[in-house]
Amino acid sequence: MSATLDELASRFSCRVSGDGATTVSRVATLSSASPEAISFLANPLYKSQLATTCAGAVIVDAGAAADAPVPCLVCDNPYAVYAQVAAVLHPRPAPKAGIDAAASVDPSATVAAGAEVGPKAVVGAKASIADGVVIGAGAVIGARASIGAGTTIAPLASIGDAVELGARCIVHSGAVIGADGFGFAEHEGQWIKVPQLGSVTIGDDVEIGANTTIDRGAIEDTVIEDGVKLDNLVQIAHNVHIGAHTVMAAMSGAAGSTRIGKRCKVGGAVIMVGHLTICDDAMFTFASIVTRSVTEPGVYGGSLPAEEASKWRRNAARFRQLDAIHDRLRMLERQVDEQLAGKTKADD
Amino acid sequence: MSATLDELASRFSCRVSGDGATTVSRVATLSSASPEAISFLANPLYKSQLATTCAGAVIVDAGAAADAPVPCLVCDNPYAVYAQVAAVLHPRPAPKAGIDAAASVDPSATVAAGAEVGPKAVVGAKASIADGVVIGAGAVIGARASIGAGTTIAPLASIGDAVELGARCIVHSGAVIGADGFGFAEHEGQWIKVPQLGSVTIGDDVEIGANTTIDRGAIEDTVIEDGVKLDNLVQIAHNVHIGAHTVMAAMSGAAGSTRIGKRCKVGGAVIMVGHLTICDDAMFTFASIVTRSVTEPGVYGGSLPAEEASKWRRNAARFRQLDAIHDRLRMLERQVDEQLAGKTKADD
Amino acid sequence: MSATLDELASRFSCRVSGDGATTVSRVATLSSASPEAISFLANPLYKSQLATTCAGAVIVDAGAAADAPVPCLVCDNPYAVYAQVAAVLHPRPAPKAGIDAAASVDPSATVAAGAEVGPKAVVGAKASIADGVVIGAGAVIGARASIGAGTTIAPLASIGDAVELGARCIVHSGAVIGADGFGFAEHEGQWIKVPQLGSVTIGDDVEIGANTTIDRGAIEDTVIEDGVKLDNLVQIAHNVHIGAHTVMAAMSGAAGSTRIGKRCKVGGAVIMVGHLTICDDAMFTFASIVTRSVTEPGVYGGSLPAEEASKWRRNAARFRQLDAIHDRLRMLERQVDEQLAGKTKADD
Repeated sequence: MSATLDELASRFSCRVSGDGATTVSRVATLSSASPEAISFLANPLYKSQLATTCAGAVIVDAGAAADAPVPCLVCDNPYAVYAQVAAVLHPRPAPKAGIDAAASVDPSATVAAGAEVGPKAVVGAKASIADGVVIGAGAVIGARASIGAGTTIAPLASIGDAVELGARCIVHSGAVIGADGFGFAEHEGQWIKVPQLGSVTIGDDVEIGANTTIDRGAIEDTVIEDGVKLDNLVQIAHNVHIGAHTVMAAMSGAAGSTRIGKRCKVGGAVIMVGHLTICDDAMFTFASIVTRSVTEPGVYGGSLPAEEASKWRRNAARFRQLDAIHDRLRMLERQVDEQLAGKTKADD
Repeated sequence: MSATLDELASRFSCRVSGDGATTVSRVATLSSASPEAISFLANPLYKSQLATTCAGAVIVDAGAAADAPVPCLVCDNPYAVYAQVAAVLHPRPAPKAGIDAAASVDPSATVAAGAEVGPKAVVGAKASIADGVVIGAGAVIGARASIGAGTTIAPLASIGDAVELGARCIVHSGAVIGADGFGFAEHEGQWIKVPQLGSVTIGDDVEIGANTTIDRGAIEDTVIEDGVKLDNLVQIAHNVHIGAHTVMAAMSGAAGSTRIGKRCKVGGAVIMVGHLTICDDAMFTFASIVTRSVTEPGVYGGSLPAEEASKWRRNAARFRQLDAIHDRLRMLERQVDEQLAGKTKADD
Repeated sequence: MSATLDELASRFSCRVSGDGATTVSRVATLSSASPEAISFLANPLYKSQLATTCAGAVIVDAGAAADAPVPCLVCDNPYAVYAQVAAVLHPRPAPKAGIDAAASVDPSATVAAGAEVGPKAVVGAKASIADGVVIGAGAVIGARASIGAGTTIAPLASIGDAVELGARCIVHSGAVIGADGFGFAEHEGQWIKVPQLGSVTIGDDVEIGANTTIDRGAIEDTVIEDGVKLDNLVQIAHNVHIGAHTVMAAMSGAAGSTRIGKRCKVGGAVIMVGHLTICDDAMFTFASIVTRSVTEPGVYGGSLPAEEASKWRRNAARFRQLDAIHDRLRMLERQVDEQLAGKTKADD
């Protein structure tokens, strides 16, 4: 696809600086772009590359437009405009409607005429596949599962029995939605399995990363609201509830029954214990360990960065003495207090 | 299914308080139950919901029975009884004996008549599938692998060549059992692959979570004893040995050759380095990093919880000075000691 | 297979100590070996087992040869020689050339005559499968993907559209290469998907562990150079670049656009934030959190090991007071300084 800057500006509410008839046909980074490409500046890290870009045009905010050597789409949020321009210039292929001859679809399943079911995919009994859905090669859709319109299930993803996904979701390869939650009752040193009778309910516009796992609820459903984005290798335990438009980066996780609010930002490798309540608009920095509920929006952190190992080891060894160090400090404080008191007395 | 309290009490050694003829047909949470449901109180967090439950009956311990507004099953371990009652009221469907026409079973494999092999599942050469086994859609069973009676392999799980699973196990979707261990010999700045010649041996009544990985041993087998329960995204490296009835929560892992005892409880995201020996009955709290062997049963911990980020940053910065802080403390101690000694001398 | 020590010594540049005509036919550990087996001593942990081994021969360095009760292959790097001897005695089966009748290969794909495509495997449009490649059961190779000669794709691995893998790679089950990177632009409290238009380029002799995820680049490719070894459940985000012969142990990860140098050693559960640059020959110890670029080769660390929980809790509580502890220390220093100054003055 190609488009002029004027066309893109009109579609995405930008101002054009320079020749609006400039035509672009693909996106590229500032440093590698050629004249048929449009690039963007959103991360200040890359600002120095703007002056020397060979792009045909760039997407920038008003502050950077003056520094751009080429025509610009000027807007408040260059990254968001870039995302939309990239989708226009590089459209995803439309579903190839139909069921591959090598797929296996239960006769009791409902597959919309406009849905695509790939080779070796399996659709279980009474499952419901809406229009515009793509079921990738080898993916498995469980019995009575429901996949909303326009949703893409990538190859080898697994959607469990009775799981419900909304519209326009993307589930990446290897994701497992609806495995049993981890529920066992201890009894005389052994473990009795607690049947996991709930399901998973997922809203619209949710994206779920590769090899991410979302367990079914123990009695009621695990719930992922609209617009949630989960990265790869994320773990969502049974009965977790994630509010709309929350994002969780790779290797993060939430243990059973934790409720995460709306619009939260959960950094990579952040893990939360179970039974917490996290309010809306909370942000957790990379690799934090969350053990208490959060009632105030804000930024929460908790990781110690790696250092040169010999230095780290010395500090880590002192950490193991920290309570004793505190006691020594307190003793000193008393001694100095007494000295000062004595001195004061002597001064009398 | 439905049952009376009297029937359930007799089956699971409970006492009935109230009308034993009360019939229940499903389980529910205290807060959402309706009269045909039986609920339970095990976690004190939910105690306040007992008085107002609309459940037809509840499973409680003797201490809570008096507070229950409805008939009760009274027992010592309500959660364990709940687990069993739930399994009675919500029985898992029996295997649909037979091999799906869309499965691929090697002619040299042995599949018991009562086993179910789902669509697109693959059973390799000389594999052995016992009675009552369910092989889910798209799952792959390697050559010479052996699956014990009543075991369920969920869709898209992968069981490697020669892996042996006992009876009544559950392997969830995406789990990979028997990939090569991570073994390489360094040689002139490059890595020579060390053939991974062992297999994986898994006992009876083991449950393995979604996308969990258990590597085959380098020479001898990786071993998972009876009754072990592993949650999702758990990593078990080559030659690890896990004792019977140990549980490991999601995102935990054990590096190569570590031996974990029986009845250990490993919290979520706990990771262990290799070549450790962990005794029976050790417990590790959430997100601990285990770098030393453990010889005494008990509780071990090691994570720092997230805090409000500005507070965290201040403490974390001091952590990086901790060894220097200790040196300053020691200097002060000396100075104060000298002062006190001087003062004592002066007092003479 | 079997071989004499003389044959093995000649092939792998070792010296024979003892009877070079000794024939061995398999490898074993020192403690479990029988006379037809060859064992090795590389980890000093196992040195005590050398004197009592029943192996027919052992691979040792010059220092240990005198202690060996049986004939030896003597060399500088016993583990590297062991790796090669094991590969000789236990050769991997050659590919069974041909496409399984239950596979699904797009007519536009190119599959070399010597390649093996297993049951239920899927090869997409215009994909290219070189000679000696093994595509395991149920694996999915995307459209336009390219798999180099001698590479093995294990069952149920997923190779995305347009991904390129070099020669002699091994991709284990459940690995997902080429899922979309995690890219979203925030816009009015919601998230706009940023199309992930790059691919993944992987060199020769790369091994990728079970359930590991490597995302495609946002615009340009994610790159894994020759000889890299990734363990299980590793996360490689979009635009990451990993230099040749770097190893990353299980559960480690690198966030978007981070560049890792050559010959780095990344321990288990080490995670790196995005946009870092790590120089060649850097090593990160188990469970480190890497938040800054590294410019000097060396060892970097950053984890606090678990302790007996009551001890841990006391130290962790003090950690939360660490900035305040530091302030108290500084106050004391001032007080003592003043006292010393006063004393000095008084002594004048």
